[in-house]
Amino acid sequence: MGVNSNRVEHIWNPEAPPPAETLETAISVTISTHAIQMPPPSEAHKVCMPPARTTAQKLRHRLSEIFFPDDPLHRFKDQTRFRKLVLGLQFFFPIFQWAPHYSLDMLKSDVVSGLTIASLAIPQGISYAKLANLPPIVGLYSSFVPPVTYSVLGSSHHLAVGPVSIASLVMGTMLSETVSYTEEPILYLKLAFTATFFAGLFQASLGFLRLGFIIDFLSKATLVGFMAGAAVIVSLQQLKGLLGIVHFTTKMQLVPVLSSVFHQKNEWSWQTIVMGVGFLVLLLTTRQISMRKPKLFWISAAAPLASVILSTILVIGHLPKGLNPPSSNMLYFHGTHLALAIKTGLVTGILSLTEGIAVGRTFASLKNYQVDGNKEMMAIGLMNMAGSCSSCYVTTGSFSRSAVNYNAGAKTVVSNIIMASAVLVTLLFLMPLFHYTPNLILAAIIITAVIGLIDYEAAYNLWKVDKLDFLACLCSFLGVLFISVPLGLAIAVGVSVFKILLHVTRPNTAVLGNIPGTQIYQNVGRYREAVRVPFFLVIAVEAPMYFANSTYLQERIIRWIREEEEWLASNNRSNIKCVILDMTAVTAIDTSGIDTISELRKILDKRSLKLVLANPVGSVMEKLHQSNVLESFGLEGLYLTVGEAITDISSSWKAHP
Amino acid sequence: MGVNSNRVEHIWNPEAPPPAETLETAISVTISTHAIQMPPPSEAHKVCMPPARTTAQKLRHRLSEIFFPDDPLHRFKDQTRFRKLVLGLQFFFPIFQWAPHYSLDMLKSDVVSGLTIASLAIPQGISYAKLANLPPIVGLYSSFVPPVTYSVLGSSHHLAVGPVSIASLVMGTMLSETVSYTEEPILYLKLAFTATFFAGLFQASLGFLRLGFIIDFLSKATLVGFMAGAAVIVSLQQLKGLLGIVHFTTKMQLVPVLSSVFHQKNEWSWQTIVMGVGFLVLLLTTRQISMRKPKLFWISAAAPLASVILSTILVIGHLPKGLNPPSSNMLYFHGTHLALAIKTGLVTGILSLTEGIAVGRTFASLKNYQVDGNKEMMAIGLMNMAGSCSSCYVTTGSFSRSAVNYNAGAKTVVSNIIMASAVLVTLLFLMPLFHYTPNLILAAIIITAVIGLIDYEAAYNLWKVDKLDFLACLCSFLGVLFISVPLGLAIAVGVSVFKILLHVTRPNTAVLGNIPGTQIYQNVGRYREAVRVPFFLVIAVEAPMYFANSTYLQERIIRWIREEEEWLASNNRSNIKCVILDMTAVTAIDTSGIDTISELRKILDKRSLKLVLANPVGSVMEKLHQSNVLESFGLEGLYLTVGEAITDISSSWKAHP
Repeated sequence: MGVNSNRVEHIWNPEAPPPAETLETAISVTISTHAIQMPPPSEAHKVCMPPARTTAQKLRHRLSEIFFPDDPLHRFKDQTRFRKLVLGLQFFFPIFQWAPHYSLDMLKSDVVSGLTIASLAIPQGISYAKLANLPPIVGLYSSFVPPVTYSVLGSSHHLAVGPVSIASLVMGTMLSETVSYTEEPILYLKLAFTATFFAGLFQASLGFLRLGFIIDFLSKATLVGFMAGAAVIVSLQQLKGLLGIVHFTTKMQLVPVLSSVFHQKNEWSWQTIVMGVGFLVLLLTTRQISMRKPKLFWISAAAPLASVILSTILVIGHLPKGLNPPSSNMLYFHGTHLALAIKTGLVTGILSLTEGIAVGRTFASLKNYQVDGNKEMMAIGLMNMAGSCSSCYVTTGSFSRSAVNYNAGAKTVVSNIIMASAVLVTLLFLMPLFHYTPNLILAAIIITAVIGLIDYEAAYNLWKVDKLDFLACLCSFLGVLFISVPLGLAIAVGVSVFKILLHVTRPNTAVLGNIPGTQIYQNVGRYREAVRVPFFLVIAVEAPMYFANSTYLQERIIRWIREEEEWLASNNRSNIKCVILDMTAVTAIDTSGIDTISELRKILDKRSLKLVLANPVGSVMEKLHQSNVLESFGLEGLYLTVGEAITDISSSWKAHP
Repeated sequence: MGVNSNRVEHIWNPEAPPPAETLETAISVTISTHAIQMPPPSEAHKVCMPPARTTAQKLRHRLSEIFFPDDPLHRFKDQTRFRKLVLGLQFFFPIFQWAPHYSLDMLKSDVVSGLTIASLAIPQGISYAKLANLPPIVGLYSSFVPPVTYSVLGSSHHLAVGPVSIASLVMGTMLSETVSYTEEPILYLKLAFTATFFAGLFQASLGFLRLGFIIDFLSKATLVGFMAGAAVIVSLQQLKGLLGIVHFTTKMQLVPVLSSVFHQKNEWSWQTIVMGVGFLVLLLTTRQISMRKPKLFWISAAAPLASVILSTILVIGHLPKGLNPPSSNMLYFHGTHLALAIKTGLVTGILSLTEGIAVGRTFASLKNYQVDGNKEMMAIGLMNMAGSCSSCYVTTGSFSRSAVNYNAGAKTVVSNIIMASAVLVTLLFLMPLFHYTPNLILAAIIITAVIGLIDYEAAYNLWKVDKLDFLACLCSFLGVLFISVPLGLAIAVGVSVFKILLHVTRPNTAVLGNIPGTQIYQNVGRYREAVRVPFFLVIAVEAPMYFANSTYLQERIIRWIREEEEWLASNNRSNIKCVILDMTAVTAIDTSGIDTISELRKILDKRSLKLVLANPVGSVMEKLHQSNVLESFGLEGLYLTVGEAITDISSSWKAHP
């Protein structure tokens, strides 16, 4: 072939990109590869060791894969010092990336979308603050400082930042179980701001320490179940407002909430019910319209604000107005409730982070730009830390408002600034109006918002595709409904991890057969045309070989051999002489796995069966070598492919029968 | 080829063994396979779906792999009813398997080995009972009933059953932290028997429910560290006896034990020290001799008994003697300490089970017979339940005594019966002697026994082969030394599980190149001769695609593409046009993984890059199909091998450039 002789130097460096030919050469290479004769059996290819590396080099590679899989510094390579400075500024403050290209057209779009989401953010801010048992004005404060901070630091163009239902709900639940807002309002506020601070600290640290993969353990299945459970609980809790009940449980489980609803029937008020249901139907209808016709997004966006204004129009009063007061003096770093604040901060932090990152990624992929997970975490974390010092509670990117933002044509995070300005005007001049917004309208707004979190279709899809994923989803749904939010989540994460472990503990093994006319070996249970090769038993192991499965794999492989031998004996066929383990999918091995292989070899030796390994991957080869197991296999026990092993071994039998 | 046309019926049933040819046909098949021309590009092989199965069938298959991987009923297939009865009896009582073939020669060997292990079992029984803070006679009781029970139920021929150091130590530690034997001897005894009962119940249930794989999670690495830690602690605790200290801590951590030793210097007695060290040196020397020359096993076997007799020869007294009294009335199923008894039972149960199974498997593999893990669990569990009703505490197969048993030429479990008979004689007639055995000699015996548990070589090997395994080993060592036995174990299991998760969270990905002259594609970082194919980027993913790695894999694959494109651009080569994902090692996929694939497809589509999947395994194909992702790939997006994909796609480019 001769085209590749001068290219060895590239190949030793795994990072170095490849050599390339022109189109014509390329095609002729691949076609001729296809048509040429295979090398004679004696020239079977050797299995290579991976390039030798020291422990320190391996550790470095491993750590860089764990913490810097995206190679964040690649843009800085081979740049001038000034350019590096600019890139560094852009890296930490994405605003420098888009600000120079910002145009009037973009501003127009951003103003429209910013005002639209403001009309949603104001009533939702008030409602969600209620969900967190906080005064309504904290919800508005939280729609001002964090969005402005995010617009400087964040890399998503469409994220609409502010309070969200789930984090509000969880914060309300966790704090109310120990401290009551009505009895100790100052302490409650302190705890809320402290929890927000720790949530931000936790989020920013995750991003800074590049541990963002921790949120990957909240799988989609878990979140679908969790959100549905939370939505059901929240909706039921809003029956307090809709039915006009005064004495209501502060607990969050299904049973106490339902019993509260039906044990306080005497407090039901038909006026409230009629008005509440009326607004609820109105809001749900406008939501339905916008879902069917995304262009009519403004209908559902304007409806809550209109409802709030409509319902509060009659109420007049004098109330504090003004900007966010500083609250850094209210942070609470010692005392009996510190543990509660930290715990609440961790749980709300991870939940809001998951929502924010997921929403950011969703809209980024729709517009085909990249959102850097670790940077986003730092942005969200810093905005919450800033928030905790200016009377805000936990905020993140809201899914519903970001969708409206996207549909309204937002181009950059400037829409967040516009929204914040609208909130600013409200805070300065219109706040008194909103303070008297009746509970029933807030309840209706909350129900409308959270009902969208119940994703039947996703749940059905999980059931259809993966029963264990569905189980994780169900666990988090039921756990949240009947036990508590953090425990429900923990159970669901446990189920997800258990699923991984189960796959490792009981991996798939299969007998391979040859597809006639090729060198391809495939599962005989799946490919009709695959034929077992006489005298050989080819077994593929489809998992890393670990302590957790080494006993199983040894037993299972011996069972495959036993079943094969029994069948051959009962059909008077000659027995197998060689067992080939296809190691292609054995992506890792530990000391127990190595013991299993040498154990298997000894057992087969005693039965005069040859054991051969085909295509062990680099790390497996390395460990087999280090543990001296490889030497016992020698040259005849290792082949690059199953096909070469069979060809070479059967020709050696022919030579020395 | 024609040899396989009549065999389709076998291939659809994954359990059915294969067809076979005579040797000549076989070799001609493989040789000709090797030499024939590949099919023309247009005839690329289709990727099959696995045979259709209902959810119930899949569940059944899955459950049978989890619980019955060894197919325990295969011996019963196609047998007469009488034969089935005999097999059933043999299955539950392995004694029926070997008893009919038992010969006088075997009896001779068993008597020799039985008496040998008895001479070890008596002093060790007394010493280990001391380790568990129990009266010495309980150690002898425990060397009588359990071995007899095991000889009826157990399937190992070489296991020497009785108390062992680790389980004794752990039981002593866990119970003494709450109840003191000297203050409340009856309660302590009750708790010990109850813990033994629960240990047995737990062990038998694990076996009965076929959940034996749970003990696989105590990896070899964990056990090496754990045993070394326990041995260090136990040896240090014996300084109490060797130095003659009277007031000694009951705690088990390194720090209090050491401070006890050095704060009670005034209690050190030089007579005790001289005598103790003398015996210790004697025992260690005989042990060393036997280790170098296994034929002289009787020297180390006889030494402890000789030391005990020598040291107690002067002491005469009147003491209770007699057989095991029943103790079922002492089981304790309610009250404040029940939880402690259950917890102690669980921990000692799982530890003794791990030791017993490991020892049984070790000697079975030396003599090439099979030990059924689940059956062994039931045998060990039932013998402990029987023991708990006859004044015995937790027992299992001891490694040191089983090794002596094996070296002494034991043929069957009859050696256990002989040993039990020797213990019986001791209990009936010689017990008073042993009661006055000085503490110092027991301390020397314990130290000699546990020092063998420190396996430097294994630890060094772990370090050499697998740093993370070594970390698990170190964690369990330090955890046991500084924290506590159950927590140390839990940490080590946690580290082992974390290792599995880390491998799944950050799997290996590699760029593949063609080995010229073949259809083989291998990692270009590892195979010098592998050459990248122009216009194609072949990426192998070496792990299941799960929620825990879906984000990482998406980012990493896009980074591979970006790096490739940057290199090609900077070298003025023409760009890639097609990305091939080699899915051979993607052994499973969940809904998040499926989302990643369709997401990747969308991203590459926008960049006008084609995405192709090569060789997805059965379960992955199934899920891709169920989630309708497969349809979007169509016929041109799925190939059986990377080679066929490249050939087919480049010829289609040639046809329609």
